Amino acid sequence: MPEPKQDRAIRTRHTILVAAAGVFEERGYQAATISEILTAANVTKGALYFHFSSKEQLAQGVLAIQDRGLAVPVRPCKTQELVDIAMLHAYRLQTDPMVRAGARLALDQGADAIDRVGPFQCWTAVVTGLLGKAQKQGELLPHVDPGETAEVLVGALAGVQAMSQATTAYENLPRTVAALLRHTLPSVVHSSVLTSLDLTTRRGHTVDKEMRDHPQDA
Amino acid sequence: MPEPKQDRAIRTRHTILVAAAGVFEERGYQAATISEILTAANVTKGALYFHFSSKEQLAQGVLAIQDRGLAVPVRPCKTQELVDIAMLHAYRLQTDPMVRAGARLALDQGADAIDRVGPFQCWTAVVTGLLGKAQKQGELLPHVDPGETAEVLVGALAGVQAMSQATTAYENLPRTVAALLRHTLPSVVHSSVLTSLDLTTRRGHTVDKEMRDHPQDA
Repeated sequence: MPEPKQDRAIRTRHTILVAAAGVFEERGYQAATISEILTAANVTKGALYFHFSSKEQLAQGVLAIQDRGLAVPVRPCKTQELVDIAMLHAYRLQTDPMVRAGARLALDQGADAIDRVGPFQCWTAVVTGLLGKAQKQGELLPHVDPGETAEVLVGALAGVQAMSQATTAYENLPRTVAALLRHTLPSVVHSSVLTSLDLTTRRGHTVDKEMRDHPQDA
Repeated sequence: MPEPKQDRAIRTRHTILVAAAGVFEERGYQAATISEILTAANVTKGALYFHFSSKEQLAQGVLAIQDRGLAVPVRPCKTQELVDIAMLHAYRLQTDPMVRAGARLALDQGADAIDRVGPFQCWTAVVTGLLGKAQKQGELLPHVDPGETAEVLVGALAGVQAMSQATTAYENLPRTVAALLRHTLPSVVHSSVLTSLDLTTRRGHTVDKEMRDHPQDA
């Protein structure tokens, strides 16, 4: 049976995005060209323009895929869910070129044409929501403002990630993200929550494996 | 009396660096050209090449000036000195194009030709040194490893700064840096130190004014 047209289109779109991610990650937004992306994707110009009308749209497509990283399995402890998002993102930056390209674009001041605010706002909204749930369950210290804490955590994670990229090509990232969480969470959650958390450097890999083994839970 | 040759050379070098900073901040490393910098500086090609042999050297010159921000007046409380470095940097990002250009270059993955690791290492070394002094004075909690905490703080500051640039053009930076410090310092220093700190958003401006009024203390 021939592959349905729609499935093929979805596959082609994905192939193009993977190729675009590779080019954006290597060359940055300004230097990247559509013809490099065409070569990397090995598709026709017509196929590319059917899905994306411009370099901007390609970059937005890569950035949008970043948001996948925000889905993790639901946990009874919302603080652990937050830790899982951060540690999974660290693991994916090490292993997934698409996530690396998104991180590069979000911090690329040369990418004026694309919406770099969106990813920060999206992450901040997700973390604020999780902290709100944690607050309702009594996990947070009484003074915590979920919106402010989310802003601090998202900004700090972006920077720890950028420093790890610049200094070790992401090699030390799980360790530095875990260190960041150990430095911030004691100001946010009750000590009884702290003692129950898995903050080990393997956490990102563990969550990734869990999601591959049970994709329906994500 | 005519101006001594050496003074004029220093002034020309500074004029070129200020122009280069403006161009790098606006256009990013890859897109910036020496001819744009020449136009902005309003100096001859010969004058520019006398001081800087390449775009790389210009970028390194701008990055090196970032390190000025690491000098603040000495305080009896080393944790306050650390707060002052962070808050002064936030204030300068709002007010000094040279500091903004350095920050952009340090996070610019397109700037492969320049040493982006240097600024992170320099900041980490300074913060590690300060935390070491704070430790000797008994300001730190017993478990703190100055090197690890410095890495977390420097990375987190870089990210909070990048997020503030992307979302508010640095407008909210003093507030978010203060929030980052309020989220991290309780895991680092004794509570008796915390209560004595000036962590208000005006702190950067206050320290900047103090250094302008008494330049010999810096």
